[in-house]
Amino acid sequence: MFDLIIIGGGPGGLTAAIYGLRAKLDLVLLEKAGLGGQIALSDIVDNYPGVPSVSGIDLIAKFEEQAKSFGLEVEYTEVEGVSSKDNLKLVKTSSGDYLTKSIIISSGAKPRLLNVPGEAKFTGRGVSYCATCDGFFFRDKDVVLVGGGDTAVKEALFLTKLVKSVHLVHRRDALRAEKIHQEQALANPKIKFHWNSVLEEIKGDKKVSSALIKDVNTQETSEIAAEGVFVFVGILPNADFIDCRKDSGGFIKTDENMMTSLDGIFAVGDVRDKVLRQVATAVGDGAIAAFSAQEYTD
Amino acid sequence: MFDLIIIGGGPGGLTAAIYGLRAKLDLVLLEKAGLGGQIALSDIVDNYPGVPSVSGIDLIAKFEEQAKSFGLEVEYTEVEGVSSKDNLKLVKTSSGDYLTKSIIISSGAKPRLLNVPGEAKFTGRGVSYCATCDGFFFRDKDVVLVGGGDTAVKEALFLTKLVKSVHLVHRRDALRAEKIHQEQALANPKIKFHWNSVLEEIKGDKKVSSALIKDVNTQETSEIAAEGVFVFVGILPNADFIDCRKDSGGFIKTDENMMTSLDGIFAVGDVRDKVLRQVATAVGDGAIAAFSAQEYTD
Repeated sequence: MFDLIIIGGGPGGLTAAIYGLRAKLDLVLLEKAGLGGQIALSDIVDNYPGVPSVSGIDLIAKFEEQAKSFGLEVEYTEVEGVSSKDNLKLVKTSSGDYLTKSIIISSGAKPRLLNVPGEAKFTGRGVSYCATCDGFFFRDKDVVLVGGGDTAVKEALFLTKLVKSVHLVHRRDALRAEKIHQEQALANPKIKFHWNSVLEEIKGDKKVSSALIKDVNTQETSEIAAEGVFVFVGILPNADFIDCRKDSGGFIKTDENMMTSLDGIFAVGDVRDKVLRQVATAVGDGAIAAFSAQEYTD
Repeated sequence: MFDLIIIGGGPGGLTAAIYGLRAKLDLVLLEKAGLGGQIALSDIVDNYPGVPSVSGIDLIAKFEEQAKSFGLEVEYTEVEGVSSKDNLKLVKTSSGDYLTKSIIISSGAKPRLLNVPGEAKFTGRGVSYCATCDGFFFRDKDVVLVGGGDTAVKEALFLTKLVKSVHLVHRRDALRAEKIHQEQALANPKIKFHWNSVLEEIKGDKKVSSALIKDVNTQETSEIAAEGVFVFVGILPNADFIDCRKDSGGFIKTDENMMTSLDGIFAVGDVRDKVLRQVATAVGDGAIAAFSAQEYTD
C-alpha cells in the first residue's frame, strides 16, 4: 500500500518524485521503458533554466540522480489500467497490481503517424520520428521531412548539419514555429520548402527510395527521391489506460491542482491538456501535483 | 518601444526572458534591487530539478548567465505604475517611461516579517518562511512555528513528518485554519501548542538555538530550545503598481495562459494567485507567459 504511485519517469514524474519523497510520502515510480520520456531523445536542450546546453539524456540523468538521493525506487513495468477501490486506487500492471492512496500520471505522449502507404512498412528502414536518434544514418543523403510546427522546424535545422538536403513538406503556406527557428530555417540553403503539400505515399524496395507528395491546391503529385522520411505532425498522449475527462486529442484535463476528474488522481507534463509542452512546464506541474497528492493523502 | 517588458528578475522573470529572447522578442527586464527575488535569500535549494543542493544565489546566477547568453538586458529601476495607451502599455518607472506591446509581471512576494530581534540575522540559518523548501533540513529536530492560519497549520502538519516536534506559537487561543487541518493538528502528538503567545526574540550563535516567547495574558516569558523557527504570518504580493483582478490577499489572478484581467499583461511566479510558490512552478509560469506574450505580439 503506497501513499502515491507515479506512472512514468519523464521530467514531470521525476519532479513529482523529488517533491513527494521530500514530503516523506511512501511512493514508487512505474516506468515501462527507460527514464526520461521524449526529452531523452533530444540532442540539445537549451531552454531549461539553470542547466544550459545539455543533452536530453544528461539532463534526465541529473533529475534521476537527485530523485534517487531522496530514496526514489523505480519499478520497470507497464501500466494496463487504473481503477478506484473504495477510497483507494488500484494500478494494474504487467507484473501485478499496486494499491495506493493517490496517483500521479506522467506517462507522456508519442508522435502522431501519417497513416499513409509505406509508413509502417519502412519505419526503422527510412521512416523516422526522431532526428536525434536517426539523423546520423542519413549523412549526405536527401531526406523528406513532414510538418511545419516548432518541433518539425527544429528537427529540420538539426538534420541540415548531417544530411545533403531536407525537403520540408507542409500542408500550409507558412511555418508555425518559434520565430527564431522560422528565420533560421527560411535562411538555410539546405532546406527546400514544399508549401501546401501533403505526403501521399512512401516508396521503396527494402528501404525508402522516394516520397510521393501532392499539392493540395492544384492536386498535382510529384515524386521526391529520398532515402529518409522524418515525420513531425503532432503528438498523441499515452493515456489509454485511464478513463477520465480528456480533451478532443485525448490529453487529460486537470484543474490548477493538477487533479484529474477522478479524486486523488493527478496528471502532469505532456499527457496533460496544456498550453506548452516543455521540460520547464512539466517540472512546474510535477511540483504542484506532488504537493496536491500530499495534501490529499494527509 | 518593446515587444515585451518583464517586471522583476526572479526565477519566473528570468525564465520568461530566456523564452522571450529565444522567440526573438525585443524585450527588457526591469529589476528594482538585485536579480533573484526571494530565492536569492535561500541558503540551500534542494528541490529544483536538475540542479541539486545549490545556494539560491548560485542558482540565480545560472539563470542569469543563461538569459544573458541569449542577449538579456536588465535595467535597474523601480516600477511605479502600469497603464494602457491605445493598444500599447506604458510602464512608469523611477527613471522614466517605457512603451511596450506586452508585459510580464514577475515582481514576486515577500513574507510578512515578525520584526523581532534575531529574525533578520538568522534568516537562512534557522529562520525560514517555507516548510516545503526547508523542512527537510530539520529532520528529527525541534522547531518553533509562528502562526495559526491555514498556511501555518498546513505547514505544521507537513513538518511533523520530518521533525521531532513543532512548537506552534499563536497569538490567539484558537486556530483559524480549515477545520480538517485544525482537527489533524490538534490530534497530532508532535505539535505542542503555545496559545495566546507571541515570539519575542530568536537566539543563537551562528545558527538558531532557541526562541523566547511571551504569554500575552500573563506577560510571562519562556524559552524554547529549537534549531529552526518557521514564520507563517502571511505573505504580501509586490503588486501595488498594477490595477487588475486580484484575490483577497492582493495576488494577481490569471488564466492558464498566465494572462491577467488586462489584455496583453501577464503575471508569473509568487505574485500570482496560485497553489504552490516554488522555483519549479515559477519556471513553468515563465515559459508559458513568454509563449503567450509571443503569440500576443505576433
